[in-house]
Amino acid sequence: MAIILGDNQYGKAESRLVRIYRDSARHEIRDINVSTALRGPFAPAHLSGDQSNVLPTDTQKNTAYAFAKSKGVESIEEFGLNLARHFVDDVDPVEGARVEVEEYAWTRAIVDGVEHDHTWTRTGAETRTAAITVDATGEYVVGGFKDLVLLKSTGSEFAGFLVDEFTTLAETHDRVMATSLVAKWRFTSTDVDWEDVYAGIKTIMVKQFATLQSLALQQTLWHMGKAVLEAYPFIAEVRLSAPNKHHFIVDLAPFEMDNPGEVFFAADRPYGLIQATVQRDDAPPANDAWRSAAGLA
Amino acid sequence: MAIILGDNQYGKAESRLVRIYRDSARHEIRDINVSTALRGPFAPAHLSGDQSNVLPTDTQKNTAYAFAKSKGVESIEEFGLNLARHFVDDVDPVEGARVEVEEYAWTRAIVDGVEHDHTWTRTGAETRTAAITVDATGEYVVGGFKDLVLLKSTGSEFAGFLVDEFTTLAETHDRVMATSLVAKWRFTSTDVDWEDVYAGIKTIMVKQFATLQSLALQQTLWHMGKAVLEAYPFIAEVRLSAPNKHHFIVDLAPFEMDNPGEVFFAADRPYGLIQATVQRDDAPPANDAWRSAAGLA
Amino acid sequence: MAIILGDNQYGKAESRLVRIYRDSARHEIRDINVSTALRGPFAPAHLSGDQSNVLPTDTQKNTAYAFAKSKGVESIEEFGLNLARHFVDDVDPVEGARVEVEEYAWTRAIVDGVEHDHTWTRTGAETRTAAITVDATGEYVVGGFKDLVLLKSTGSEFAGFLVDEFTTLAETHDRVMATSLVAKWRFTSTDVDWEDVYAGIKTIMVKQFATLQSLALQQTLWHMGKAVLEAYPFIAEVRLSAPNKHHFIVDLAPFEMDNPGEVFFAADRPYGLIQATVQRDDAPPANDAWRSAAGLA
Amino acid sequence: MAIILGDNQYGKAESRLVRIYRDSARHEIRDINVSTALRGPFAPAHLSGDQSNVLPTDTQKNTAYAFAKSKGVESIEEFGLNLARHFVDDVDPVEGARVEVEEYAWTRAIVDGVEHDHTWTRTGAETRTAAITVDATGEYVVGGFKDLVLLKSTGSEFAGFLVDEFTTLAETHDRVMATSLVAKWRFTSTDVDWEDVYAGIKTIMVKQFATLQSLALQQTLWHMGKAVLEAYPFIAEVRLSAPNKHHFIVDLAPFEMDNPGEVFFAADRPYGLIQATVQRDDAPPANDAWRSAAGLA
Repeated sequence: MAIILGDNQYGKAESRLVRIYRDSARHEIRDINVSTALRGPFAPAHLSGDQSNVLPTDTQKNTAYAFAKSKGVESIEEFGLNLARHFVDDVDPVEGARVEVEEYAWTRAIVDGVEHDHTWTRTGAETRTAAITVDATGEYVVGGFKDLVLLKSTGSEFAGFLVDEFTTLAETHDRVMATSLVAKWRFTSTDVDWEDVYAGIKTIMVKQFATLQSLALQQTLWHMGKAVLEAYPFIAEVRLSAPNKHHFIVDLAPFEMDNPGEVFFAADRPYGLIQATVQRDDAPPANDAWRSAAGLA
Repeated sequence: MAIILGDNQYGKAESRLVRIYRDSARHEIRDINVSTALRGPFAPAHLSGDQSNVLPTDTQKNTAYAFAKSKGVESIEEFGLNLARHFVDDVDPVEGARVEVEEYAWTRAIVDGVEHDHTWTRTGAETRTAAITVDATGEYVVGGFKDLVLLKSTGSEFAGFLVDEFTTLAETHDRVMATSLVAKWRFTSTDVDWEDVYAGIKTIMVKQFATLQSLALQQTLWHMGKAVLEAYPFIAEVRLSAPNKHHFIVDLAPFEMDNPGEVFFAADRPYGLIQATVQRDDAPPANDAWRSAAGLA
Repeated sequence: MAIILGDNQYGKAESRLVRIYRDSARHEIRDINVSTALRGPFAPAHLSGDQSNVLPTDTQKNTAYAFAKSKGVESIEEFGLNLARHFVDDVDPVEGARVEVEEYAWTRAIVDGVEHDHTWTRTGAETRTAAITVDATGEYVVGGFKDLVLLKSTGSEFAGFLVDEFTTLAETHDRVMATSLVAKWRFTSTDVDWEDVYAGIKTIMVKQFATLQSLALQQTLWHMGKAVLEAYPFIAEVRLSAPNKHHFIVDLAPFEMDNPGEVFFAADRPYGLIQATVQRDDAPPANDAWRSAAGLA
Repeated sequence: MAIILGDNQYGKAESRLVRIYRDSARHEIRDINVSTALRGPFAPAHLSGDQSNVLPTDTQKNTAYAFAKSKGVESIEEFGLNLARHFVDDVDPVEGARVEVEEYAWTRAIVDGVEHDHTWTRTGAETRTAAITVDATGEYVVGGFKDLVLLKSTGSEFAGFLVDEFTTLAETHDRVMATSLVAKWRFTSTDVDWEDVYAGIKTIMVKQFATLQSLALQQTLWHMGKAVLEAYPFIAEVRLSAPNKHHFIVDLAPFEMDNPGEVFFAADRPYGLIQATVQRDDAPPANDAWRSAAGLA
């Protein structure tokens, strides 16, 4: 028996970067958060403290900022691909690179009914995400978003469930269903109109959430993922993580009031957590597509 | 010399309440966070533990939910007034009531190009606020918002400032200016179209932020407040608190790149914090209008 | 009627500063968060953008770091006094300065049973606070802490309270009482052994919380504040803010179990919020002692 | 090609549970946060909304509270094992169960120099964690902690690293090293004195952090993991995730001061993130030991 070094990676997390395009009076803005991780022959750094293969995390940060200038931030998927390719192709010992990007949306300010050239308000809805992996096996792009908060005030049921000795929940055929959705989708191509596909996926998911008479959050997730795969042949897999943000009907009977689905207590914790993967049965291997920059421990 | 009880208050903070209107197939939603505090003859509760004047905080919460049913949540200012009046008028020992409400905005989901009847996405931009005080001196309503994140990519300068031996900052005539604005405005009337005024104030403030060639964040705040007072004669005072969310230009010279206002590091801490009040010189007394439900310690 | 500038202030918030003393092999550490705000003739900055009286917030930050070197951080109260006096005395237009400091505690690592010379773990209990105001009327020091989380599993009652038509709460003579205490105390002297007094006040408050058979959180707060004033003649006033962190007994009857105060659900929101001031009847005026660096809006 | 359901799981996250032992006047407290997830034949719930195999998340929560009474919370590893075994053994369709528990530490209040019987302060240092998986392949226990914040003011270097065209970092042979450590260790036995081992591992890791002259955070992590494996033969693997919480030396030269490692700016973002696994080369298979209750998307 011996003690050995297992999986490892290192990088710079959460470099906050704003890119302004000011080629005309009508500026453009991209506001992102970049995390990078490198994989490769870093055993000497661990075992003896030998840093000769270690590109400093400070350098990784510098590279992100320099690429924002030289390559631009047209879309976070493309930005991540450029950065990951650079680390693997141009930095000799590096064998694999992971780049994760969050993007915060801004909306042009409206002044006297007209969009303003250089002022925005932060939209604050969902955060768009991308995770890019480049290594010897290929290039992998996972798009996504987090914290898309959705609520429907009817069209959701929960009944016919398994009952055991610890079950006290009543069945319902009309409840509020709300979630703060995290979705990630794996592309099988890098030749994609990233902006267009992102908007399309969001539209599809919102439609499924709204229109399905939901018998369970699981069923809603399945239909969301399935509709995305049907629309985009170059997406192999969709992963969905949906907290069931409980809205409990308040008992107003002590005050001689009824409450037919009108007044709710929105609870913080605990919450249900429903997670599902919808995929093609012939999806190519994911390899490290899902291995996060923060994925150990 | 004696030790005495000074200012005190107590209440229930952060009751999360969702009100659905389902009078037709097209539902409506109001999503709020209610905090209440009562003021009055509560010395016995402190000095001897005598609770006979103390309406439990649990009851205050119940009352908020019951009023959401019986009175509705047409606007948070009106909701708060109803609740505060009740505590003062109907609960005998209570002398003053403070109700603070936050509102989270939802946008109707778009399905096949049409607004959906009962599905929404959380908008996530600013949080609307209201603070209502009712006591023997009258009724006070303070409207507001927090966390309205604004950014302009040009049209902001900072120069001609005081220099001492600890000053290293360079002057600039073109910088990014960004803030997460907190604004509060004091009404002198309760006969107000709350929804309309809220939208109007936000439009005015965004316009001032966008269009003023800013020599300082202080100047921008002054013009924001002044424009609101000029538009609404029933507003006596506007208070503004604006973190200067620094966007530092990244030095790309070591990589032989220039950076003419294109790539920025968005810093978390520290941040400037600029606060100003703009008011009428004949404003009626504020009394406890600004005394928060969480205002001691 | 005219529109005028009212209260205003500006400064640098949350400069994170770590001071290491390495005069011997046994290092010392102070880890603080510094916010400063200046008050004075800043109307021109607002009305016309004239910055000639405005010491940049960047300079205020620099000054905090320079003073950490030149004056040291023996105690946060002393550090704040030094900094505030400097702004008022040495920077000509400044009329008043407010310095707020948070301190994070570290505990020496134990290695082979012995305290280590230069390694610490973050203690993570309460955060110590200080707020210093210097202006033409004098010098004011407010000490304190926040987020001291306390819990007692018995010795707390709540009964005999006011009942109205919205009251459903049952009386109890044995409950869990828990809070995350914020306490602030106003000194009437600056000739104080700050470290010793801080430790003493905390010991006193914890003892009162533990030993009083509590009929209400209000009563507990009163006794905490009173005991501090009795111990320290140079403290004029204690302000206490205590969320009632509800621990609800879980109903296990459906599972044919009793629950005599053994299993609780710890709720997040809503929570009670109890606030009280305990003071001397001959306390000198507070003036701006309680006016926060973030106190507008 | 077909669209199919892939990995999925569901459960109740973050049930906050406090267990008081009051068998004698000297009470005991365990304060935990429980998340459960079930795995099994849940395709019908997704594809057609058929819930007949679905034990409600509300029931999972109830079970956690009931087990806190009937089985107690002697250690979070044992509590998790009891709960996971129940779901797999007693709830027919369930094939696999994952239970994740966080524990918050409390310290007895000291009153007049003596530990109090029923009052505690929240310690606030690291959060202890456990993750238990039970399925057809066996039982897996992963212990751990998160947010153990460590700092050493000397004894850390970073030099000899790889340099490319984006590298601007200077070498250093004496820096502050600080992290907020997340550590997880996989047991190969369930016959363990959980409390004793937890304390032992923490002591070992702190010692390694303190005493190693560190050439890189990677090297420190390796030695931490290795020392744990050497001490405990029933631990197969240690995973470590360590943000490099940068403490930048402040340049005081503009103020004609030197700064020999005394005054630092503690930065929030970005931060380095170093992750490593230290394991035995004959470790038994982990199977789903590392598959989180929140692990999809």
